[in-house]
Amino acid sequence: RIAEAHARIMWGFGVRPNDTVFIGSFFSLYWGSWGALLGTERLGATAFPFGAGVPGQSERGLEWMKEVRPTVFYGTPSYSLYLAEKARAMGIDPKKDFNFRILFFSGEPGAGVPSTRKRIEDTYGGICIDSGSTAEMAPWMTDGECAHRQGMHLWQDIVYAELVDRETHRKAPYGQEGVTVYTHLERNSQPMIRFWAGDIAYWTDDPCPCGRTYPRLPKGIYGRADDMFVIRGENVYPSAIENVIRGIEGLGDEFRIVITREKTMDEMIVQAERSPQADPEILPELKARLAGELKARGLRAVVELMEPGTLTRTEFKARRVIDRRRIHDDPADPN
Amino acid sequence: RIAEAHARIMWGFGVRPNDTVFIGSFFSLYWGSWGALLGTERLGATAFPFGAGVPGQSERGLEWMKEVRPTVFYGTPSYSLYLAEKARAMGIDPKKDFNFRILFFSGEPGAGVPSTRKRIEDTYGGICIDSGSTAEMAPWMTDGECAHRQGMHLWQDIVYAELVDRETHRKAPYGQEGVTVYTHLERNSQPMIRFWAGDIAYWTDDPCPCGRTYPRLPKGIYGRADDMFVIRGENVYPSAIENVIRGIEGLGDEFRIVITREKTMDEMIVQAERSPQADPEILPELKARLAGELKARGLRAVVELMEPGTLTRTEFKARRVIDRRRIHDDPADPN
Repeated sequence: RIAEAHARIMWGFGVRPNDTVFIGSFFSLYWGSWGALLGTERLGATAFPFGAGVPGQSERGLEWMKEVRPTVFYGTPSYSLYLAEKARAMGIDPKKDFNFRILFFSGEPGAGVPSTRKRIEDTYGGICIDSGSTAEMAPWMTDGECAHRQGMHLWQDIVYAELVDRETHRKAPYGQEGVTVYTHLERNSQPMIRFWAGDIAYWTDDPCPCGRTYPRLPKGIYGRADDMFVIRGENVYPSAIENVIRGIEGLGDEFRIVITREKTMDEMIVQAERSPQADPEILPELKARLAGELKARGLRAVVELMEPGTLTRTEFKARRVIDRRRIHDDPADPN
Repeated sequence: RIAEAHARIMWGFGVRPNDTVFIGSFFSLYWGSWGALLGTERLGATAFPFGAGVPGQSERGLEWMKEVRPTVFYGTPSYSLYLAEKARAMGIDPKKDFNFRILFFSGEPGAGVPSTRKRIEDTYGGICIDSGSTAEMAPWMTDGECAHRQGMHLWQDIVYAELVDRETHRKAPYGQEGVTVYTHLERNSQPMIRFWAGDIAYWTDDPCPCGRTYPRLPKGIYGRADDMFVIRGENVYPSAIENVIRGIEGLGDEFRIVITREKTMDEMIVQAERSPQADPEILPELKARLAGELKARGLRAVVELMEPGTLTRTEFKARRVIDRRRIHDDPADPN
């Protein structure tokens, strides 16, 4: 059923059986890759499930894109821009040397942000399509744009989506902002009923040139009702990092999470302090332990340890996360 | 058809629909992972396609093995031993804390080598099964042991296998050694007819306790008719490395490929020389270029550059490859 749903929605992106879909995301616990693969196969298009994440894989993928000339790309928006940069460094022009006519994305809000969309379309010469509700709600493409790119349609016959008021939890009228809540209509295993996904969007039922009458999210998903953030397609809760730090004897209670975008890929820096009781000599050991425990939880982070009292104390959880990525406040972005 | 064939052969390993199969190998261009996934799904068992290769993924995989307790493992033999070592460092006992009753392998000869097999079985407490012809011949499991582990059966009704004399190319009688040659009987795309896979084995038609009447390779695959070697499941031709080195101006003609097994994972060291004409100052740049070009071809190697004349000159191609892994000359190995 997931394959059926994704094939229908990918048809809406403009994908056809004669397309070859390059899947440039990690095949493991990340639902994105598997969902794109299932949809591609059911649609009858050719899948090129290349994956991502292994050292050296990007360069190799670029060689294959030049060779095989796939027509559709799937991945995260930031990875597509990272690939383009690598390509140029290798003397490859992503527009001329590749053959992408559709690039569809999930895992990050970027593809729905006008400035990022424009950058991707200018870089590759294909259309940039935003999709993705949340992994728990797979088939996750049921928030998905059509080829007209007027915001993600909500495919209500597969997963019933509502936007609700953040406080009262009552349904928000069209034209207003709310928190995404989803209900599975087709799943036999782990069906979710009114699942609080916690993303913030506004919705409308204005007509779309494609003729579909589903409501739409014209600005995509642009915020969170809690402090979760998304880095390289993975959901991260600051509380999980907090638990790791507070579980290591010798580290102080205060911490910061700094998220930067070096060129095009996200980096997370975790800053923590030595506790006043701990011997300064064990600092390298503490650092290695913190990095190791984060890594074991799938959190790729640069760890910086500081002397006690270096970090400003804050009462507000959210202030511990400093997001320097500027996805939404790009000066070129009219929104 | 590949799924059908693999499901049949995996049933021969002892896999049943109530099993959960942990696929601990890289999902990209490596056929092993996809073949194991197709077979698992067709057999009706539960697939846990975890993958491998991304930094931090091994630790995370170990946590999941403890949590989900899959009953079947697929990967390369060396990766299974690497995982066991990581597990112990994390305070996990692979025998007690995991639940593997079958571990099946391909991509490397290890699982057919008695000492390695014993080590894997002692470590995990499950049976160790060798399989794998070659990627070109997918369904690649048609060389595959049964649960009795008396050497790989050749599933002749799916892929017709022959062992031939290395010089005359005539079929070797049972009981003798030869080079593997395969013919697809079931494929519609890219069928191979008498494909020279170039592996060396000996075969027999002695009865197997399982009752299957296929011929068998009692010692598995234990050599190559050419100078190709396998590292981390990837086929590497020294000539490909030679081409890279000789394509870089400033490098001399002589080179060495040293393969070591640090603890349990293979490492490849490529040694090359500066050409006498090249400025010694550009050595770091040459090194980076060589490493980069190898990486772009999917070859993960440590590069060592030397002064002109350091490496002994050799006329024999094979002497340029120094394999220190001792897969086949383990003193504990009776063969």
